[in-house]
Parts: sequence; C-alpha cells; structure tokens
Amino acid sequence: MTTQHTAYAIGHAPSHTKHHEWRTAANSAPRLLPHLQKALASNPNLKLLDIGCGPGTISASLAQHLLPSGNVLATDIADDVLERAKEHAISQGLSVPDNISFQKASVYELPFSDNEFDIVHAHQVLCHLDDPVAATKEMLRVCKPGGLISLREADMRMWCFWPELPSLLKFHALMVEVMLANGGQDKGGRKLVSWVMGAGVKREAIEAGFGTWCYSATEDRKAWGESMIERLRTGQMRQKGIELGLTTEEGVEEMVEGWKRWIEREDAMLGIVNGEVIVRKA
Amino acid sequence: MTTQHTAYAIGHAPSHTKHHEWRTAANSAPRLLPHLQKALASNPNLKLLDIGCGPGTISASLAQHLLPSGNVLATDIADDVLERAKEHAISQGLSVPDNISFQKASVYELPFSDNEFDIVHAHQVLCHLDDPVAATKEMLRVCKPGGLISLREADMRMWCFWPELPSLLKFHALMVEVMLANGGQDKGGRKLVSWVMGAGVKREAIEAGFGTWCYSATEDRKAWGESMIERLRTGQMRQKGIELGLTTEEGVEEMVEGWKRWIEREDAMLGIVNGEVIVRKA
Repeated sequence: MTTQHTAYAIGHAPSHTKHHEWRTAANSAPRLLPHLQKALASNPNLKLLDIGCGPGTISASLAQHLLPSGNVLATDIADDVLERAKEHAISQGLSVPDNISFQKASVYELPFSDNEFDIVHAHQVLCHLDDPVAATKEMLRVCKPGGLISLREADMRMWCFWPELPSLLKFHALMVEVMLANGGQDKGGRKLVSWVMGAGVKREAIEAGFGTWCYSATEDRKAWGESMIERLRTGQMRQKGIELGLTTEEGVEEMVEGWKRWIEREDAMLGIVNGEVIVRKA
Repeated sequence: MTTQHTAYAIGHAPSHTKHHEWRTAANSAPRLLPHLQKALASNPNLKLLDIGCGPGTISASLAQHLLPSGNVLATDIADDVLERAKEHAISQGLSVPDNISFQKASVYELPFSDNEFDIVHAHQVLCHLDDPVAATKEMLRVCKPGGLISLREADMRMWCFWPELPSLLKFHALMVEVMLANGGQDKGGRKLVSWVMGAGVKREAIEAGFGTWCYSATEDRKAWGESMIERLRTGQMRQKGIELGLTTEEGVEEMVEGWKRWIEREDAMLGIVNGEVIVRKA
C-alpha cells in the first residue's frame, strides 16, 4: 500500500471554497459537539487538531466552542488556503495564535509528537486520499490516550436529486469519476468503521452514524446550485473531466443549464449523505 | 389519477412489526419534536392525529410527549394491528381514550371534520400509496389552519451497505421491486416537497430535510439483520417476490445467508435515508 498523497482533486478555486465557507461546527460536526462540551467540562484547556482545514470555517467555529482557554491547530496541505483560513479566523474575532493557529502539514506525516492532542478532527479529508487507513493511523498516533478522533466523510454515491434532471445525473456521475481518477474514495461514508478498524481500533471504541445535507429551500438551492455552476466553469472537475474524455465542453454547459433549471424548481430537493464516527483512543 | 388504496405491501407479520417496535418519536419524528414542544407551550390540549400507526410505538411515544392534557388519535387501515397498538399504549402506562385512542380509517377518506387536529403526523405512509398527493390533501383538510402536518418517508433507493455483499444488494433490489409492484413509491424521500406542493401548499410553508437510520453497532446489526431474515422467511416480500418471478426459494435463502454474514461483520454499516417535511397549513 502506498502512502503517497492524492493531490486535492477539486482544487481551492473560489467557487469551491465558497460552498466550504457555509460550513460550521454545527452543520458539519454535529456528532462531535456534545462530546466536545463534555470534554471541555473536565478540561478547559483542550487542544484540538483540525486536519485538512481548507478555508477554515469549521476550524474557526470549533475554536469559538473552545473559548476562552482551549486551542485549535488547523492544518492543510495547501499554503494559500491556510492564509485565507487565518484571515477568516481573525475576521471572526479569534486571536492568532492564542485561540487558533495554522500550520502546513501532510496528514500522512503529521509534524507532531505522539499523544499531543485531546481531539483530532477531520472533515471530508479521507475521501480525497488513496490510503485512508494510513492517515487514520497517523491521526491516532498524535491523539492522547482517552482522547477522541472525529471523522466525517461524504458517501459520494449517496446523492438524491429531485427532479432527476438527466444533466444533473450526468454531473453526479462525472463528479464521482473525477474523484476516482484522482485516487480518491467514492464510498467513504459507509467505509468509515472499516477504515478505523483497519487502523487498529476495536469496534466498541467507535460511535458511528450518518448525517445529511439537504438543499431545498430557495436560498440553499441558489447557494449550492451556483457553487456547482462556478465549479463547472472554473474548477478542476471541468478540466479533468474533459482531459479524461468523461465529458465535453458541450456536456459541461448542459450540466450548467441543468443546475440553473434545478435552482428555479421550487419543489427541488438534493440530499447528500455523510458517514460520521467518533473514536475513543485506547 | 386513482385514489384507491394500495394494500399495505409488507404486511403486519411479527417479523415486520418487530422492527417497527424499535421506533419512537425521538428516533422517528426528530424534526417534529421541537415544533411539538413549542405548540404545547401555547396549547396544552393539543390534538394530534397519527395516520398509519401500525403497532403504535411512535403514537404512544407522541402521546407521552402530550401528557397530561394533549391527546393522540391513532389510525390504521388494518384492524389487527390497531388492537396491538392499543395493548402497547396501555403497557406504556397510557390511558385509553384519555391520552390516546384508536380508530380504523383510510388516509384517502378520513372520517373527521375539516380543521379538526392541531397536528397531523404520518410516518412511512405515503410511500405505500399509489396517490400520495390525494392522501396529503386529505391530511391538510383535517388539519386546523395554522396547524402542522409532519411527514417522514423512506427514499428506498438511498440505502448503502458495507460490506456490499452481492446477496444484500439483491435483497435491496427485490425490496424495491416488490414495493413498486404493490403500487408503492421508491423515491418518496426526495419527492416529499413535490407531493406537498402538489396538494396546494406554497413552498415557504414547508420545512424540508433528510434524516437517516444507521445500523452498525453490534446490537443494532443483530436487531435489524434478524428482522430482515424473519421478513424474508415469513413476510409478504418473499411470497410476492417469488410470485412475480423476481427471485426463487434459493435466492431468498442466499439473502438470508447474506444477512447472517453481515450481522457477524463488526465493520458493517447500513445507512437508510428518509425525507422529512413539516408543513404549516395556511
């Protein structure tokens, strides 16, 4: 098994980070929050490592939960997005580095000692990797015994659209194919327990479930649909899809039109499923 | 469009109701509960109609939430299951008819006046019907203006298994085919907003989302897997599947073996997605 990086397939184009900025601890780490409150009650100086933080909105949101004396260390493999994440944290009134700090790091070789963090968090990270089990082992290494690992990963096969416009079904298929072509994972959600057990954790130390995102209300359809359109127009998915012969310029434009029609449909729904686990390190 | 009943396809064999008995308001009506609390605060004498109550565990659980002065009226199209639901309510310490009562009724022709109930609730009912829009209209008719309709329907296409045992994928395909052959709906979850709007409701009166059931922990795998095995051995799905030529005795036994293997797999996950809406009647 290789432990090389998968390049982050989607890229950090503004279109992509735009949707990411909608993310908070409440909508993207709901299973962690009650555990976080409980851990804080016994240790107000919690150290949380947020791996693959991207634009850092979940990291900043977690840092708010740890105020006043806890601390988030947010990492990403990409320099540029870390700078943006830092600016976002400051814009949220957080103090750098007291409440939150930022560091470039590979999840496969975290530049931290064993047993260093109380909580290790990763959201939509393993699904971009070719060796999620190796990454999970590394997260376990830097977590304190008795500490928690919190993982949430999309199950990319588990999307449901209404209406089922053929162009949107093609969009979904393209997205999955590009993810796989980049060495990522299409069924991360359902495999989470398997990955964590593969990293040496016993089943009874794992709490597992699924969570959903739903886009249906007018403002949500607009925000999500427009982010997909921008991704199609400027993102890596278009370029890679055409390069691999999975679609064409015309095909991409058809998908753009599909999203526009979907945004206009008041009865539309889009459901996306994430697997979620909370792991207690032995 | 016909407004005839679809016979309840799965049947009320003990195998099937066994799983249903696991259901409570907390795990099966999570989106309704905060609305219920709010409504109770301004009116302690809430009247809730629970349509298609089956063995009545959700009904009884809702009645507990309405104590001391609210009241649930639970209906079903089947006599035998209503008797069982009544026994269950009594076993939970509820008083019949003060806290909860039972009545045979068709969702297409509810034997109630217009504007009679504060809350109308139906869980996994529309997906068994050939005309979900007509049923929704009837629910709206008996709901008071300003009252709530609460619907939760499985999206049967949205199951994900790990491991993906071929016999379980065949089980899932058979389940969907039998549902369709019985005139039911395979994509109820994603169509809920569309159905409700089809019944004349404006989009802004609808709160929509998805919820999941996850079977992964040892006791949950065992309870769910064994219920599926009993359903395969004694339920309507086996008989109908064989009758329609969708499977054979050997095929069914292969599915039973698949569930047994799945129960034993500590890294197993099964995710099932439900659409959920809360509708405010104008």
